[in-house]
Amino acid sequence: MSIKHALSVTRQDDFAQWYQLVITEADLAEESGVRGCMVIRPWGFGIWERIQRLLDDRIKATGHDNCYFPLFIPLSYFEKEAEHVEGFAKEMAVVTHHRLVADGKGGLMPDPEAKLEEPLIVRPTSETVIGSAFARWIQSWRDLPVLINQWANVVRWEMRTRMFLRTSEFLWQEGHTAHATPEEAEAETLRMLEVYRSFAEDCLAVPVVAGEKPENERFPGAVATYSIEAMMQDGKALQAGTSHFLGTNFAAAQNIRFQNKEGQFELAHTTSWGVSTRLIGAVIMTHGDDDGLRVPPAIAPWQIVIVPMLRDAPEDEAITAYCRALQASLAKLTALGEPVRALLDLKPAKAAVKRWGWIKKGAPIIIEVGGRDMAGGNVSVIRRDRLYREDGKLDSHAMSRTGFADAAAAMLEDIQTALHEEARTRLAANIDRSIGDYAGLEAFFSEGGKYPGWVEVQWSRPTGDELERVVQKLKALKLTIRNAPSDAEETDGACLFTGKPAVERVLIGRAY
Amino acid sequence: MSIKHALSVTRQDDFAQWYQLVITEADLAEESGVRGCMVIRPWGFGIWERIQRLLDDRIKATGHDNCYFPLFIPLSYFEKEAEHVEGFAKEMAVVTHHRLVADGKGGLMPDPEAKLEEPLIVRPTSETVIGSAFARWIQSWRDLPVLINQWANVVRWEMRTRMFLRTSEFLWQEGHTAHATPEEAEAETLRMLEVYRSFAEDCLAVPVVAGEKPENERFPGAVATYSIEAMMQDGKALQAGTSHFLGTNFAAAQNIRFQNKEGQFELAHTTSWGVSTRLIGAVIMTHGDDDGLRVPPAIAPWQIVIVPMLRDAPEDEAITAYCRALQASLAKLTALGEPVRALLDLKPAKAAVKRWGWIKKGAPIIIEVGGRDMAGGNVSVIRRDRLYREDGKLDSHAMSRTGFADAAAAMLEDIQTALHEEARTRLAANIDRSIGDYAGLEAFFSEGGKYPGWVEVQWSRPTGDELERVVQKLKALKLTIRNAPSDAEETDGACLFTGKPAVERVLIGRAY
Repeated sequence: MSIKHALSVTRQDDFAQWYQLVITEADLAEESGVRGCMVIRPWGFGIWERIQRLLDDRIKATGHDNCYFPLFIPLSYFEKEAEHVEGFAKEMAVVTHHRLVADGKGGLMPDPEAKLEEPLIVRPTSETVIGSAFARWIQSWRDLPVLINQWANVVRWEMRTRMFLRTSEFLWQEGHTAHATPEEAEAETLRMLEVYRSFAEDCLAVPVVAGEKPENERFPGAVATYSIEAMMQDGKALQAGTSHFLGTNFAAAQNIRFQNKEGQFELAHTTSWGVSTRLIGAVIMTHGDDDGLRVPPAIAPWQIVIVPMLRDAPEDEAITAYCRALQASLAKLTALGEPVRALLDLKPAKAAVKRWGWIKKGAPIIIEVGGRDMAGGNVSVIRRDRLYREDGKLDSHAMSRTGFADAAAAMLEDIQTALHEEARTRLAANIDRSIGDYAGLEAFFSEGGKYPGWVEVQWSRPTGDELERVVQKLKALKLTIRNAPSDAEETDGACLFTGKPAVERVLIGRAY
Repeated sequence: MSIKHALSVTRQDDFAQWYQLVITEADLAEESGVRGCMVIRPWGFGIWERIQRLLDDRIKATGHDNCYFPLFIPLSYFEKEAEHVEGFAKEMAVVTHHRLVADGKGGLMPDPEAKLEEPLIVRPTSETVIGSAFARWIQSWRDLPVLINQWANVVRWEMRTRMFLRTSEFLWQEGHTAHATPEEAEAETLRMLEVYRSFAEDCLAVPVVAGEKPENERFPGAVATYSIEAMMQDGKALQAGTSHFLGTNFAAAQNIRFQNKEGQFELAHTTSWGVSTRLIGAVIMTHGDDDGLRVPPAIAPWQIVIVPMLRDAPEDEAITAYCRALQASLAKLTALGEPVRALLDLKPAKAAVKRWGWIKKGAPIIIEVGGRDMAGGNVSVIRRDRLYREDGKLDSHAMSRTGFADAAAAMLEDIQTALHEEARTRLAANIDRSIGDYAGLEAFFSEGGKYPGWVEVQWSRPTGDELERVVQKLKALKLTIRNAPSDAEETDGACLFTGKPAVERVLIGRAY
C-alpha cells in the first residue's frame, strides 16, 4: 500500500528540502525580506512560547532571576576582549548613525551629521555587558552567588542562513552566574546542563546526549564547555544547548572581584549557558514526518483541535454547540501537569482543508465532528503520531464524545511518551560503539553516501597540535567530535587516533 | 511626630530626583554605560514579567496570537512611507556595516569592505514590516480578521532620556490587526483600549482615563488614536497606552487587499495598539512613597517576603525551619486568582537591612521571625501600604503564624484594593471640572508653581488652523490636551477656546 503523503518532498527524497517544506507548510516561519532574518508565524512562535514558559519555570526553580541588558554594546567593550571577539568571527551588525535624512533624490540616507562617536554593536551575546554589570554588583562574598538569566534577541551576521538553525537574528536565553569558588561554578555549569538535558527529554521529547565538548570546540575563554547533542532523522548531530564553566578568565578581563570572609580580594568564578530558537529546528528534524510536523503535546500551542464539519446548513449551529461542549469539558482536564489546551477551529474553510492544515502543523490530536458523529454522540479522532492504519488509510476512528473527553488527558501523555520513545529508539540504534580503528570509522561514514548516525570511540584526549591533527583528519570526512558523553562506559583500550591509552569515549558525527 | 523615611529625597522635596532615587534604591534599573539604554535589574524585570504575563493572557483571551518580526527594517521600507517617518522624527539607529576589523592601532573598526548595500534600521516600531507580511498573508475575506501581537525591544534615538519613561531602547508589545470592515476595525481599537484600561485598573491598580486623543496628537496616518492617561503624584499626566484605528491608510500604503465574498478587491482596515516598559514608570509615580516603591500584589514578583532574624546561633536552624513551614503553607494559597508568591530570604545580611531593602522594593507584605516570635507561635507582619502607626513608628505587629497564613490571601487582595482606592481618590480629587474660561485655566496651572492636576473643559473640537492656535496657546503654559474621556458627561455650553458650541469634554494637563 502506498500512502500519498501531505508533503510533496519526503525526508528520503531530500532532507534539506523537506525541512524547508515543513517550515512553510506548517506555517512556522517565513522569509522576512530582511537578509537572514525570519518572521516567526503564530504556530512557530506559539511553540517557542511554550518552550520559553517551560524552560523559564525550570531556570527560576533553580534559583535564577531574569534581567534585561541593552541591545547595543559599545565597540570598545569588544576591544577589551580580543580573544572573545575572535570566537565570534567579528561578523556583527554595526550601528554607526542615529538619524536618517532626505538624500535629496527622494530617498533617505544616514545623516552624516549624526555619526556616532563610538559605533555600537548589536549584541551577538551579552557576556561583556553583563560582566561589566557583575563588576558593579559584586563587592563582597555576601553578594555571591549572582544567578541571572536573560531572554533576548541576538544578532550574528551569518553568510549562509537556514531557518531556525542559523539566522542572523535569533531568540535565545543566556544565563550568567558568578560564584565564590570554582567548585560552586562547576556545579552550576553541570546543574544547567542537566536542566537542558531533562527539559529536552521531558518537554521536547528530544533525546539528547549530555557531555563535555573537546578542547577545540570550547567557547573562547571557557575552561570547559558542555553540550547536549541531538540526532536528527538524517543522522546528523544538532548541538541543542551549551553550558560553559568560565573559571576566572572572564572575571579577570572584566574585573569581577569580591572581598572574601577573610577580607581578601578574589576573582569570581563565572558560568554561562544558553539555548535558542534552534530548538525548534531540533523538534522539526526529530519529530517531523512526511505529512509535516508532529509537535509533542507538552509544547503544542494547541494540543487538541476540534474541527466541526459545517456545510452552511441549519444543522451547523447544533454541531458547533456540540463541539463547544466538548471544548469546555476538555478545558477542565489536566495533562502533563497543565490545563489541556483545546481549540475550536471556526475559521471559514472546508473541513478537509482544515484537517490537513492541522496535520501538517502537527497538532497532537485532531477531532472532527460531522452530523453523523453528533447523531451518534460521537467524535472522529485522529492521533497525529499514528496517522495511518495498517492498510494505509488515514486512521480517523469514532469514539463517544464523553469517552474521548475521559481519555484525552491520558492520550496526550501517551503521545508525548510515544514520540520520545520513537526518537530514543532511533538514537540508540544509530550510535555505533563497535568501531576500533580509523579505517572502520572511514568506512562507517562513507557507506551509502548518507549519514548513518554517530560513532562512539575511545580516545586519549589529545591536546594542542596532536588534537589539531585529529580535528583536521575528521574534517576531511566532514566529521566533528560532538562531546564526551557524561554517562559513557569506562574506557578499556587504545585511542583510535593516537594509539595511546584511551581516557574517555567521544561521539563523532556530521553536524548542523 | 516626624518620621525618618527610607529615602533621602521625598516626593515633596524634588519629585524628579525622588523618582530616580526609587529606581536606584528599589533595585529596579540602572544606567548601562550605553547611552540611553538601561539595565533592568531582577526586581524591575520581575515586575515587567508579571505585567507581560497578565496582559498577554488578556491579549490572547481576546483572540490574538503572538508572532515575531525582524529587529531590522530595510531603509527603503521607510522611504515608502514619508508620512510615517515624519512621525518618528527620523531619530533611529542605523546599521551600516556587518563586520568589525582591526584598525591597525590596536583597536577595532567597522570593516569598509563590509558596508551594507542598503542600511538597516533598528525597528522603532514594526508597522511597516508587519504591514508587508499582512500583504502576503491576506488574499481573501476568509483570511480576515488577522489578529496578531508582538513582544519586542524597539529603539528610538532619544536625546533626553529618563529611565522607564523615555529610553532609547525599550520593551513593549505592539498589536496589529486587519479587518474586512471599518466597523470591525473600530470595534477592535476600542476593545483593546478597554483591555488596557481594565488591565491598568485591575492589575497595576493605576486608575486611568480612557478616551480619544485630539487630532494633533494622533499617530501619523491614523484615523483615530485613543489613549489611557494616568495621573502621577505630581499631578502630571502619563500616557500609559494607545490604540489606533488606522482606517485603510496603512493598507493602501502597503497594499493589504482582500477579495470580498462578491469577488471584488478591497483594502483591509487595520489597527495597532501598544504599551511599554513605561508602565513601570506609571507604577512608580502612582504608588511610590517616601520609603520607596509599593508594588501592587498582582504584579509583585514576590508578594510576601519572609525574613528570618538569624544571629549565627544554634536557634537559627529552628527559626529557618519555622519560616519554611510558613512559606510552604503560603504557597498553597490562592490570591487574586493565582498561587501566592512567597519568598524566604536567606541571603547573608542583617535582618534590619533586609527589612528596609524589601520596604524600599515595595514587597506588599514583609514577615519577620525572631526567636521570640517563634516561641510564641507568632510572626511579625509589616504591610507595605500601612507602614507606620499613628504615633509614627513602624507598624510591625504580631500575628499567630497560622492566623497570618489564614489571613494572607485576603490581606494581599486588600492591599491591591487599598492601593487602587488611594490612587482613585487622588485622581478624582485632582480633576477640576469647574473652569469655564481661559483665564481660569491659566490661573489653575499657575497657582503655586506646582502641578495641581488636570482640568476637564468643554470644547468645539476645532481642526486645522483653529486647533493649531489652541495647541500653541496651551503649549505656552506647558499644557497639552490629554484626551476626550469616553465616559465624560454631555456638553452644555460654549467651547472654552473658540466660544462656539462645545461638542465634547477634554482633559488638559502637563504631561511626561
